[in-house]
Amino acid sequence: MHAITIPEPGGPEALVWEEVPDPVPGEGEVLVEVVAGAVNRADILQRQGFYNPPPGASPYPGLECSGRIAALGPGVSGWAVGDEVCALLAGGGYAEKVAVPAGQLLPVPEGITVDQAAALPEVVCTVWSNVFMVAHLRPGETFLVHGGSSGIGTMAIQLAKAVGARVAVTAGTAEKLERCAELGADILINYREQDFVAELREATGGAGADVILDNMGAKYLDRNVQALAVNGRLAIIGMQGGAKGELNIGALLTKRAAISATSLRARPAAEKAAIVAAVREHVWPLVATGRVRPVVDREIPMLEAAAAHRVVEDSGHIGKVLLVTTD
Amino acid sequence: MHAITIPEPGGPEALVWEEVPDPVPGEGEVLVEVVAGAVNRADILQRQGFYNPPPGASPYPGLECSGRIAALGPGVSGWAVGDEVCALLAGGGYAEKVAVPAGQLLPVPEGITVDQAAALPEVVCTVWSNVFMVAHLRPGETFLVHGGSSGIGTMAIQLAKAVGARVAVTAGTAEKLERCAELGADILINYREQDFVAELREATGGAGADVILDNMGAKYLDRNVQALAVNGRLAIIGMQGGAKGELNIGALLTKRAAISATSLRARPAAEKAAIVAAVREHVWPLVATGRVRPVVDREIPMLEAAAAHRVVEDSGHIGKVLLVTTD
Repeated sequence: MHAITIPEPGGPEALVWEEVPDPVPGEGEVLVEVVAGAVNRADILQRQGFYNPPPGASPYPGLECSGRIAALGPGVSGWAVGDEVCALLAGGGYAEKVAVPAGQLLPVPEGITVDQAAALPEVVCTVWSNVFMVAHLRPGETFLVHGGSSGIGTMAIQLAKAVGARVAVTAGTAEKLERCAELGADILINYREQDFVAELREATGGAGADVILDNMGAKYLDRNVQALAVNGRLAIIGMQGGAKGELNIGALLTKRAAISATSLRARPAAEKAAIVAAVREHVWPLVATGRVRPVVDREIPMLEAAAAHRVVEDSGHIGKVLLVTTD
Repeated sequence: MHAITIPEPGGPEALVWEEVPDPVPGEGEVLVEVVAGAVNRADILQRQGFYNPPPGASPYPGLECSGRIAALGPGVSGWAVGDEVCALLAGGGYAEKVAVPAGQLLPVPEGITVDQAAALPEVVCTVWSNVFMVAHLRPGETFLVHGGSSGIGTMAIQLAKAVGARVAVTAGTAEKLERCAELGADILINYREQDFVAELREATGGAGADVILDNMGAKYLDRNVQALAVNGRLAIIGMQGGAKGELNIGALLTKRAAISATSLRARPAAEKAAIVAAVREHVWPLVATGRVRPVVDREIPMLEAAAAHRVVEDSGHIGKVLLVTTD
């Protein structure tokens, strides 16, 4: 098969489409013939040499894919060759085939094409595990997501609205904020022109956000704590603004607030399977009814993955950038 | 009645025993004739002028007491004049009488004298709400409590052991560590001579603590994060080592860990009542059977509260320092 490899870390040009050995599904795994993968920021870090795959994972980038089951490894039940699926991966999604533990598979939801389904696993599992399983966002609460027009952001808006929360977003352009509003966002904050702490206070009568989903890390840490409501929960899933920041413990304590930080990729297969099962139970019905949709910016042939990385690095996209195989 | 007042913030001598008007129980409150109060670090901060009582609270210090119900305010049921009780207070425990919402009352547990019961409300509610209701310590997990010989520490050791956790403590002297061991602590760390991160790693095969209860705040923030296990939870309840510290978000994220910070005093009455109800359900049976006991360092007459503050400020005590009225 072919896959995108990274012979030497570097810029987008470090991504090389070449022939590699086919993966072999192990115990409890299936082999998926990939129709589409999707770009995540973690892939860019991996390309740059800053995020090595966890032990046992495929060396190729790609944390999610969609496609059809080509073969079953030993001990797999409930799935059949030919099934249309999408999957959460520890790596290897930038390839024509990938082996994945059966617990990380989801059926392609009703009403979604196979390629579009590649936009779902990583963002849905990340949002569900952080915003709902860890931070327990409840109906009527106020939810702030930074980068509202990103893949994570567009899914977080939809899921938070679906459970009855009030949704605030930050984004860097009027066009992005407009798209967030179309997806249901109630409070639109242009972070280039406005202070999100002040805007959120204003919009909530001084209360702040009950749950914040953050991808900026250090750069926003102090302001996120300021923006939290009493009993608020800050869920950090990225460190695009740095890894070490000053924490105002006094403010956290006065608010009886909490901070969690997680990543999906390094979790053991059992934890991933638990998240995927929760997603199938709680989110898949919302996708099947059209209440929650994948938001796809564009599809780019997988062998042009370098171009796709440039799109994501320029942050001009809205939603997910997909990589489609060209059979 | 008499109460300890603080005419001017300052050292222990700022505490003045003087005649003040009797409190009047409002709607849903009872009037307790105080047998004993207890010293908490928050009282010292209040004496120093750094911790004003929340709106509506008694101006006198004292976050807990025991005694007998002297009168019922309107709308109170389930309690009778003469009942022996202990209570979680928003203030006013350093007094001969105090008015308290009925939801913050607990019966004096079987086998405990009325005065000794004053050692229980604040530490039991603090430990239960943080370690169990927020951080969800589970059987078989490793629990670290800093200041293992303090009032909080001695209760945390007992409750964590009672639910089947493995307990690590830090303390500053061999005598204090010995007392912690008598209460059930498994891993004893002298913070003056040992690095608690290294000792905990060694004792847990490199895994670290699943839950940490911390009263130091900034000074221990980075080391507490280092000492956490994967999926670990750090619960901060004090800032004796400062209010602002650098947080290593990268380490938190790699461990999928969480930090919470709470205080009891500022919580609305409904939240306090929920904690007190949980304590009555889960902890009171353990006290009644003798599995969990109040740990009292000494009893000092309430009018000598200054002396009691000196004892706590010198940190030579083990467990709680009580203030007894002298009828």
